[in-house]
Amino acid sequence: MVDINSYEKNILFIKGEIEKAFQKIPLNKTPNYLYDPIQYVINGKGKRLRPILVHLVGQAYNAIPADLMKVGIAVELLHNFTLVHDDIMDGDDTRHGQKSVHNKWDNSTAILSGDALFVLAQLSLKGLSDFIHQRFNEVALTICEGQGMDKEFENNSSISMGEYLIMIGKKTGALLGLCAELGAILGGLSKEDAHNLFEFGLNLGLAFQIQDDFLEIFGHESNMGKSLGSDIFAGKQTALMILARDNNSNKWEEFINTKNSISDYQSYFVKNGIKTGTETIIQHYIYKAEKGLKVINEKKRNHLRQFTTMILNRTY
Amino acid sequence: MVDINSYEKNILFIKGEIEKAFQKIPLNKTPNYLYDPIQYVINGKGKRLRPILVHLVGQAYNAIPADLMKVGIAVELLHNFTLVHDDIMDGDDTRHGQKSVHNKWDNSTAILSGDALFVLAQLSLKGLSDFIHQRFNEVALTICEGQGMDKEFENNSSISMGEYLIMIGKKTGALLGLCAELGAILGGLSKEDAHNLFEFGLNLGLAFQIQDDFLEIFGHESNMGKSLGSDIFAGKQTALMILARDNNSNKWEEFINTKNSISDYQSYFVKNGIKTGTETIIQHYIYKAEKGLKVINEKKRNHLRQFTTMILNRTY
Repeated sequence: MVDINSYEKNILFIKGEIEKAFQKIPLNKTPNYLYDPIQYVINGKGKRLRPILVHLVGQAYNAIPADLMKVGIAVELLHNFTLVHDDIMDGDDTRHGQKSVHNKWDNSTAILSGDALFVLAQLSLKGLSDFIHQRFNEVALTICEGQGMDKEFENNSSISMGEYLIMIGKKTGALLGLCAELGAILGGLSKEDAHNLFEFGLNLGLAFQIQDDFLEIFGHESNMGKSLGSDIFAGKQTALMILARDNNSNKWEEFINTKNSISDYQSYFVKNGIKTGTETIIQHYIYKAEKGLKVINEKKRNHLRQFTTMILNRTY
Repeated sequence: MVDINSYEKNILFIKGEIEKAFQKIPLNKTPNYLYDPIQYVINGKGKRLRPILVHLVGQAYNAIPADLMKVGIAVELLHNFTLVHDDIMDGDDTRHGQKSVHNKWDNSTAILSGDALFVLAQLSLKGLSDFIHQRFNEVALTICEGQGMDKEFENNSSISMGEYLIMIGKKTGALLGLCAELGAILGGLSKEDAHNLFEFGLNLGLAFQIQDDFLEIFGHESNMGKSLGSDIFAGKQTALMILARDNNSNKWEEFINTKNSISDYQSYFVKNGIKTGTETIIQHYIYKAEKGLKVINEKKRNHLRQFTTMILNRTY
């Protein structure tokens, strides 16, 4: 039996501790040019999923909470740094329901404060092993590669599903993988065993991102925080578009060359098996993710399974 | 007696080793969007002054050359990362005699490749101590603060000399300080003794930057790689402007409110003692820098004194 209450209490407790730790990051007050946007980002409405994942995995191995918090702060700051810079590159004016940094201030401010958020992430790793520093930065480079691929793919209508999966694996999956891996490393697991946790996070990230593409068409606007179809209409690659093209490129070309509403897309994707195909892919990666969890003792695995369910059901 | 030949041979040897090490940085080939600009920056015509300084200090204490090279690559990549991002923020279209990254490609490319250069800097520190990781990132944050102050100071005509010195100390001095400090740490010096070397580099950086302001007015265009007076005409703070304002703000206001050529500036600065005053400040920081060197055995100090002379005479 899964003890829902205890999971929910645990998540609330972890989240509370994370917010406290964020307020304790030692920050100078000036120059305001640098620190005002940093305070703005740190106080933003992030869901803190990445540090929560670090803590949940670390808890399963009785890792030292203070060390988990160092890594948790570092991964969240790394995540925020990439969002601030990606928002400039993608021209996104809103983030977590408030103005993005480059929109509230300007590009220069967003470039510089993003840089400093990444430096603060590195400083948060103080006292941890060289291996943790290395893995952290290897994955940071992977994320840069993912963003580079994403930029290359813009308006490129010949991207295969394989290329797309590599891109989202680098851009979204690798950081969730890192969170789980470093939680395990701090819990004393060998590098090899900890790598299974990386695979768990990576596959969870793939499922999450493809589900994001899915909900962009079939979700409810109120839950998504953006209007339906916005990625497709902006010329971005999504799993559904690639599946539709792979399925019947002539028919798809003909469809997108006419002016279509979101409900036209919905019925095209349903009629041509794209909806079902996408759901199958999501299930495949959830299955793979859960396999990666098997390295953890069954009793201790529960909260991580509930975490998976929670973020895939988006009930947070 | 200073053995010039041996110094010059040593610098050539170190520079050759640095270039070889740069070519050996493990880099993926794709995505091109990310790695083409990185290759472009790495193959640029930087003078490698910062890694040379790491090696010269490290040599004085027989540090392990491979470790000096790790730090040398890291500080040079950190330097390049800041240049790529600063060039976007300042709208500078040329760097080291070639197009800056955002000019050759675009802002998004320059933001992302700058980010990745900084990640590569972190990765270069593999296997070194937690203290080195920390100091490296503390100084990276200091540099961000310096750039933040520089942006705040733009077109602000009430900046004091004290504020200006803090800004250039953070933006330019701290990195040279770090180079000398980490060379000493790798040579086995205590943190306290190594801090004297930080002070050496910091003061050298202050002398160098104020001299840069000086040569912007009194230098030869062919040596400066930019047209004389460009900072002043762009509304940037320089030591000479601040001295002139401190000296007689009404007279200075009156002067700058009329359309002046570079030779008008030159004669104003000569007549009002600003030229001599600036030279005195530069000498002051050279003197302070050399005091910081005294922690090094006199025989082993020679190459560092020659390095100081070389970079201040700009004979490289």
